[in-house]
Amino acid sequence: MSFDRLIRKIVETKNPTVVGLDPKLEYIPEELKAEAYAKYGKTLEGAAEAILSFNKGIIDAICDVVPAVKPQCAFYERFGWQGMKALAETIAYAKEKGMFVIIDGKRNDIGSTMTAYAVAHLGDVEVEGEVYTPFGGDALTVNGYLGTDGISPLTDICVKKDAGIFVLVKTSNPSSGELQDRSLEGRPLYAAMGEMCEKWGESCMGELGYSAVGAVVGATYPEQLAEMRKAMPHTFLLVPGYGAQGGGAKDVIGAFDEKGLGAIVNSSRAVLTAWQKQNRPGSEYAAAARDEAIRMRDDITQYLPEIRL
Amino acid sequence: MSFDRLIRKIVETKNPTVVGLDPKLEYIPEELKAEAYAKYGKTLEGAAEAILSFNKGIIDAICDVVPAVKPQCAFYERFGWQGMKALAETIAYAKEKGMFVIIDGKRNDIGSTMTAYAVAHLGDVEVEGEVYTPFGGDALTVNGYLGTDGISPLTDICVKKDAGIFVLVKTSNPSSGELQDRSLEGRPLYAAMGEMCEKWGESCMGELGYSAVGAVVGATYPEQLAEMRKAMPHTFLLVPGYGAQGGGAKDVIGAFDEKGLGAIVNSSRAVLTAWQKQNRPGSEYAAAARDEAIRMRDDITQYLPEIRL
Repeated sequence: MSFDRLIRKIVETKNPTVVGLDPKLEYIPEELKAEAYAKYGKTLEGAAEAILSFNKGIIDAICDVVPAVKPQCAFYERFGWQGMKALAETIAYAKEKGMFVIIDGKRNDIGSTMTAYAVAHLGDVEVEGEVYTPFGGDALTVNGYLGTDGISPLTDICVKKDAGIFVLVKTSNPSSGELQDRSLEGRPLYAAMGEMCEKWGESCMGELGYSAVGAVVGATYPEQLAEMRKAMPHTFLLVPGYGAQGGGAKDVIGAFDEKGLGAIVNSSRAVLTAWQKQNRPGSEYAAAARDEAIRMRDDITQYLPEIRL
Repeated sequence: MSFDRLIRKIVETKNPTVVGLDPKLEYIPEELKAEAYAKYGKTLEGAAEAILSFNKGIIDAICDVVPAVKPQCAFYERFGWQGMKALAETIAYAKEKGMFVIIDGKRNDIGSTMTAYAVAHLGDVEVEGEVYTPFGGDALTVNGYLGTDGISPLTDICVKKDAGIFVLVKTSNPSSGELQDRSLEGRPLYAAMGEMCEKWGESCMGELGYSAVGAVVGATYPEQLAEMRKAMPHTFLLVPGYGAQGGGAKDVIGAFDEKGLGAIVNSSRAVLTAWQKQNRPGSEYAAAARDEAIRMRDDITQYLPEIRL
């Protein structure tokens, strides 16, 4: 009912990073794509198969050094239900390999509709008494604009399924300030959202100091990151924006607590395209991803205390 | 590149309402479910088939009197990729029958990720030069918490594909005020979001006075609805909360302009469960939905000026 499982996995790997599985066809080596198209044609099925096969290679290469993956729903939905099938199969594969899976869906709605999203991404669904797991993530990113009605259906499922959520607080993009930085009753809106996260988390505290309600705070705003770590002592942080978006290792230090815990830093593009950046052949895409994942781990942990429970 | 198509369809049917396709298995007559389970078993495929078949019956029954349908993604995602397939097929069927399709996904992200969502729900995707339409909606609901970086990828596709978006402004749920009503630099946050909608819409104005950037404002807050109609003169409104959530016909009058346009009012549960509410046999579920859709139209239009261009 919290992020305890993720925290233990981070301590085990001594690695507070997550690899974003945001596949684009142009990241995938020609050989892999040719194989997929030979089976399914240049179709949505073919694209989905290429993505799945690419993801499996990445997961195989990183699963012993990285604790978690974060597939981004948009890059699967783009290929229709066939892409969503590849998402489900990617998640199942990553879990088989022992990884913690954060579904980046930024879902939001209210009441029974939000319950349906919670069931879809974190829970089980019943069909006349038969139980199925639609996507089976361990955590889901969500948007809190609708208030408690949009969050309480999730915390119920988090408790039941030992899962977690990350609520958007201060996002990494340039225009995040248009709304999030503006003054809401005397302090920035993101701070108000952060306070709501702390409150929502009270009903689902874990054993290791953090609740099941985490928050997304971008690496591109290091001051706010450090500020929110202090303001939200029970809220585990998911930190996007490292690498391709411009955040560096020093920028994310403020996200961590004195045990080197409390946050997980995401990198997507730099890992997935490492073989292209390093001018290596397509056959080495997975090995290149592993090299980049290790480089990222070392880059970030050099500034942290030894990671421990 | 705007809501002109929707507006013309509303004028043609003289009906400013939309039926929400939010299927739950308990809404579906036993006969339909038995047929689906006979084909696919009590599985996710079976549930998805039951939903699709239920939706087709509703669409057949209402397509000459209601201009639009609004499938809610959560109720399809709940049944995994199999459910998403039923979503795609529901949308294709509704469009075949001439209906305008609003995908209620409340999607949000930034940059190329948001472009992927825009492509998924409103656009076309290329696989090595072959072009496919993943979900093919005419409009998509979105969440504006991330600012312009999350909206501009959508307006680009709206222009290209003659589509629209509805940004959450003031939602219909009880806790919507926790954030949306709080004072952002001297006025409610929802008003600031509304102003952003007007600004985002400037690049994609239609011929009939409204842009491609619409807004969601709930029927359960009639004063704010009338206030936002005035404050957002170029923003078409999607109004949830009529019926089951407690909003009445008089509560939505303020959403409309002097031609009876500018807004579309949603009802989901009351239409989908009309056969149960009216104690009619399952075989009449579609006829009951039509009766309820007509009752809703008449209930709302009695307070409006004659709908005209």
